[in-house]
Amino acid sequence: MPFTVKAKIASFGGYLYKLSHPSSSTGTEMAVSVYLPPQAAHQNQKVPVLFYLSGLTCTPDNCSEKGFFQHGAARRGLAVVYPDTSPRGLNLPGEKDSWDFGEGAGFYVDAARAPFAGKYRMETYVADELPAALFADPLFASLLDASRVSITGHSMGGHGALTLYLRHPGKYRSVSAFAPIANPSNCPWGQKAFSGYLGDDRAAWAEHDATELIRSGAWKDRGDLKALVDVGTADNFYKQGQLLPENLAKAVEEAGLKGLELRYQKDYDHSYYFMATFSDDHVDHAAKHLGLL
Amino acid sequence: MPFTVKAKIASFGGYLYKLSHPSSSTGTEMAVSVYLPPQAAHQNQKVPVLFYLSGLTCTPDNCSEKGFFQHGAARRGLAVVYPDTSPRGLNLPGEKDSWDFGEGAGFYVDAARAPFAGKYRMETYVADELPAALFADPLFASLLDASRVSITGHSMGGHGALTLYLRHPGKYRSVSAFAPIANPSNCPWGQKAFSGYLGDDRAAWAEHDATELIRSGAWKDRGDLKALVDVGTADNFYKQGQLLPENLAKAVEEAGLKGLELRYQKDYDHSYYFMATFSDDHVDHAAKHLGLL
Repeated sequence: MPFTVKAKIASFGGYLYKLSHPSSSTGTEMAVSVYLPPQAAHQNQKVPVLFYLSGLTCTPDNCSEKGFFQHGAARRGLAVVYPDTSPRGLNLPGEKDSWDFGEGAGFYVDAARAPFAGKYRMETYVADELPAALFADPLFASLLDASRVSITGHSMGGHGALTLYLRHPGKYRSVSAFAPIANPSNCPWGQKAFSGYLGDDRAAWAEHDATELIRSGAWKDRGDLKALVDVGTADNFYKQGQLLPENLAKAVEEAGLKGLELRYQKDYDHSYYFMATFSDDHVDHAAKHLGLL
Repeated sequence: MPFTVKAKIASFGGYLYKLSHPSSSTGTEMAVSVYLPPQAAHQNQKVPVLFYLSGLTCTPDNCSEKGFFQHGAARRGLAVVYPDTSPRGLNLPGEKDSWDFGEGAGFYVDAARAPFAGKYRMETYVADELPAALFADPLFASLLDASRVSITGHSMGGHGALTLYLRHPGKYRSVSAFAPIANPSNCPWGQKAFSGYLGDDRAAWAEHDATELIRSGAWKDRGDLKALVDVGTADNFYKQGQLLPENLAKAVEEAGLKGLELRYQKDYDHSYYFMATFSDDHVDHAAKHLGLL
């Protein structure tokens, strides 16, 4: 099914497309934005693609307005795809009771538990359906290089980026994350989400937990990770133990893996001020692994 | 009176201070944000200052979150001051009836008409009281160079930047504007605001209208303008005749003045996507005239 173009907005020499399309994964119309850099928008070059996964409560607009990714994407010549964070408008029981679960908080898993099962299928949507739809769409097929894809994200979206990277070897050339929920099985946000979407079986949780995936050998014999992670030292969610990047780093070290660059950024918080400051670095990290640098 | 620090947020190697202070111009507590670049925040250098005036409805947060001035300011080493767009909390009759007049829409004039007179004094506040307070404040006095100041703004704030520059020769080294309301006497926004704040005397309006100021010889014998203006060709407010940059350009030409660079940016709209794309250029324009480039 084709995408409906809601808006086409000039940005850093290219265009941001605000789109929607009917999703078979969720059974809803899904919002998504795609940034085409000038190399694609004006020079008709086929460019690599960086998927950006947003955090709790966000829509595709938050990061495209505040994250500054278009600056780096235009400079390096890559497209950025901003998916939404959950289906919307389903009106399921409990879906809107809290800001950190349900609508706006899909956690990039396929839910197994009622009433979310069969509808909150954000892993299938982001990893499979959405890219397939974009790479086949008349507007984008000739401009997006399906063979060169990387992924990044913020907070819940950092968790999404890391777990999709680890769970789908070969699909993404690299991963990066800002303030990711790096060990969700062991923090309040993750425990609430995984209980609600996956049920009480912690083995199922471990399949969607970056730290537990590393511990269980998911990346064994796959070579070096291509991972960059930034965490701000003034991030209140980090201080509260919601992010636990140190657990991820420890698991990577104990697994004998290389290629995780974890940077603690002094005084930075959890906000888009933090993101905007370092988004050029994350674009460059992806650009390097996508053959642009 | 000192500033109250509401938040100190790391951004592009420096800090954004969210502040408030009691204003004698307005009789209210005024919100303002100040970005100190790393050269000031960490190296204790005294840096020049760029005032950024926001558009209709905005607070100091909109541009500091979405405008990306901090990117250029950190690179060049200048501070950015983000004032609010009106007093708030006065509860005057008619103050909140519309989004383009009253609260959030002070138009950078000192109102002469009741009930706004004596309270909506945004020209005095922005041009005199606020800089004097900042340059005397214990936190900022040694880091902000009162002798090197420029001004910029967006939409209503572009009008404010241009008129304050023209009305206060010598106060600002340069001016720039994004999509300014360049001839407010001849557009609906300006006519509504000037009627409400200044009354029916169009001679009083002309004193706060960049195009009319140029026409009346306000810049005669003052040398070249140091002015950069960007307008997007897909800006609906431009198409509706709210901005009228062509009137400003014509007045400048007829006055035999040089130094206005007016750029029409193809396909750009009125939003912060437009601003973010060109804010580096506007920072560089200021930096050049502030002796940094």
